[in-house]
Amino acid sequence: MVSKSNAIIAQSGGPTTVINSSACGVIQQAIKSSKIDKVFGATNGILGVLEENLFDITSERPKDIEALKRTPAAAIGSCRYKLKSMDESKADYERILDVFRAHDIHYFFYIGGNDSMDTADKVNKLAKDTGYELVCIGVPKTIDNDLAFTDHCPGYGSVAKYVAVSAMNAGKDTEALYTTDTCTILEVMGRNAGWIAAAAGLARREPEDSPNLIYLPERAFSKEQFVNDCKDALKEFGRIVVVCGEGLVDDKGEVITADAGVFDRDSFGHVQLGGISEVLKDIVGKEVGVKARCNKLGTNQRSAMHFASLTDVNEAYLCGKMAVKHALDGVNGKMVTLVRQSNSPYKCTTGLAVLSDVANGEKKVPDYYINQAGNGITDAFKEYATPLIRGEAEVTIGEDGLPVYMRFERKPLEKKCANYL
Amino acid sequence: MVSKSNAIIAQSGGPTTVINSSACGVIQQAIKSSKIDKVFGATNGILGVLEENLFDITSERPKDIEALKRTPAAAIGSCRYKLKSMDESKADYERILDVFRAHDIHYFFYIGGNDSMDTADKVNKLAKDTGYELVCIGVPKTIDNDLAFTDHCPGYGSVAKYVAVSAMNAGKDTEALYTTDTCTILEVMGRNAGWIAAAAGLARREPEDSPNLIYLPERAFSKEQFVNDCKDALKEFGRIVVVCGEGLVDDKGEVITADAGVFDRDSFGHVQLGGISEVLKDIVGKEVGVKARCNKLGTNQRSAMHFASLTDVNEAYLCGKMAVKHALDGVNGKMVTLVRQSNSPYKCTTGLAVLSDVANGEKKVPDYYINQAGNGITDAFKEYATPLIRGEAEVTIGEDGLPVYMRFERKPLEKKCANYL
Repeated sequence: MVSKSNAIIAQSGGPTTVINSSACGVIQQAIKSSKIDKVFGATNGILGVLEENLFDITSERPKDIEALKRTPAAAIGSCRYKLKSMDESKADYERILDVFRAHDIHYFFYIGGNDSMDTADKVNKLAKDTGYELVCIGVPKTIDNDLAFTDHCPGYGSVAKYVAVSAMNAGKDTEALYTTDTCTILEVMGRNAGWIAAAAGLARREPEDSPNLIYLPERAFSKEQFVNDCKDALKEFGRIVVVCGEGLVDDKGEVITADAGVFDRDSFGHVQLGGISEVLKDIVGKEVGVKARCNKLGTNQRSAMHFASLTDVNEAYLCGKMAVKHALDGVNGKMVTLVRQSNSPYKCTTGLAVLSDVANGEKKVPDYYINQAGNGITDAFKEYATPLIRGEAEVTIGEDGLPVYMRFERKPLEKKCANYL
Repeated sequence: MVSKSNAIIAQSGGPTTVINSSACGVIQQAIKSSKIDKVFGATNGILGVLEENLFDITSERPKDIEALKRTPAAAIGSCRYKLKSMDESKADYERILDVFRAHDIHYFFYIGGNDSMDTADKVNKLAKDTGYELVCIGVPKTIDNDLAFTDHCPGYGSVAKYVAVSAMNAGKDTEALYTTDTCTILEVMGRNAGWIAAAAGLARREPEDSPNLIYLPERAFSKEQFVNDCKDALKEFGRIVVVCGEGLVDDKGEVITADAGVFDRDSFGHVQLGGISEVLKDIVGKEVGVKARCNKLGTNQRSAMHFASLTDVNEAYLCGKMAVKHALDGVNGKMVTLVRQSNSPYKCTTGLAVLSDVANGEKKVPDYYINQAGNGITDAFKEYATPLIRGEAEVTIGEDGLPVYMRFERKPLEKKCANYL
């Protein structure tokens, strides 16, 4: 490795409340190092690398870098650009190395989920094949909590906390107005895995608390069972609060959605979801015979810095920091993982997983976290998830009563390569 | 007035984050008084009176009464039962007085909006006509902020703060992922008045902040203008964050929803599910040519105790307290109002308005708070609304990282009247 070279940091996929905390960990740790000269941000993830759209984070104001911990979403910019296989997209991978070469970049820190780890892995392998010295380290990120080889993912604790408090609040609202507005349906994210929906169950401390019913994509959704579940809840509590993951599927594995429009698939080929709560609302009205309302938190659940989990913020930061430490220690081709040491007191350290393993893995909610009826969670899940939502992240509140977030100045780096995209 | 008699407190209509703070003010002030013996809660508003479904709040634990300030929604229970005119519903009004008589109730504190003030006014007049000694005082409550004769309504500051932070967070999310998820549409409450939608504008400190566009029911919605507005925002910022009140109307005054209205069917003749945000999403996809996502905060916006306005909580409490003070001072047939003394520093005291005046009034967002293009707010609105969202309400967080809310024990009072409903 050359004595002192530059690093690139990029963020990818759906933003989270704490992806910037991970970025902060990477940047602050890299700045301390004598081996890393400058840290460049790739504007909008791998797109920024392909387009040579880079900026020097090292020259940003330290207070802005510190404020990353208190700013949701992805301050460097994210994207949903997915590189195909090496056969199909070799030019893309070569371009990435060209840009790295032009800017003397020998460290690549990629914050993302499975797809990002796959990209990092392929770039890394091509570098090896072509004799370009490169260290690629992945930093886990996803609200979906579905990455394998890590106890949980940075981003999950905060969405879990927000969804739980939202279920609690919607529950109080329903409890107050049940005589007319008897049912509330909370639609939450979670395409293939029900981790986020499950987190709503943390709100239910007592039987009369909300939510009454939670449906996860891990179980085939049965209209008949749903109607019976609602009738039971109605009989027992006089009201119904339902939480559903957006990716509910029927017994044929087809996603249940009311939606289909011109942009019904994203660039990864995933069906654009949304609308399950409206489907359930319709069923409740027609088959249960009570009025239902829908709350669809949408992107607000993954950007709620004002009630984020401090544990999540701290662990996201730690993952970023450890990525740099490992890179400098000679680790390569790995993603930092979170390793739970104990539950009471909760202790969590980090480990490492092979990028390609993470890329190919997916962790759904296991059976023992879902109740037998498939409409709620178990105590084992509560034990797993509760430590992750503890503590309230720090937020700076301005004179106007609203949070103060940072935004990078983002002075673009001079381009050294030909145009590409 | 008899030397010592009982009071009833009831809550009505849609819950808010701070309606319980008003109840707390009423209860704690009444407990101090030598003229009021017991305070009874009417379970589910006026329904609880009609059904003689009462409980003794005076015997609830003082710490639960205090915790009302930190609990959203309506702890006594609310309802949407609307009494008709005296001619049509005289039996109802007489029944109310029968229940009051049976339980020696001579003070009636009603927390609600226009309809509640109308009910309180009619009960009061009937009491006068029949020689029953009664003091009726209204306490204002509505997230919609549309009550006349008061500078603003308890409940508004908190929904405003939550909607603003949600616009801010959704904005950061859109900023991060604009290359694919270019437009975010936030649907907020406000059926006839755009106060809540307008509040989202508080999030926009700099031109590049969100939201870009705000549409209020006070202005006829034009699809053509909307498309142009979106294209302009897209050109200038590369992304679009739209906030819309749920009650948007077209130029004929018809409410635009997916269920009924001008945009009710897609090109295949399918009725679209969801509300105004889904309609706008469809327009953005088809006419602007970018992908949009919808966030529909629903009842979560009016129950978000975890980011409520301290100013709102304090003023709601003050209104409740003043209602009792005035009642004991011989005031009758009035609603407590909020009177702004100055803006910097912000000072607000209370006043009084005649119940029947409030019942018949409605306050929409005035022209000078809406920008000329009808797609945003003015600085004058910011000056009006900013003081109302300042300060963060206290929340008790439990061991599990979630708020701790109270719930009354609610031991039912022995019934003394025949069944009614």
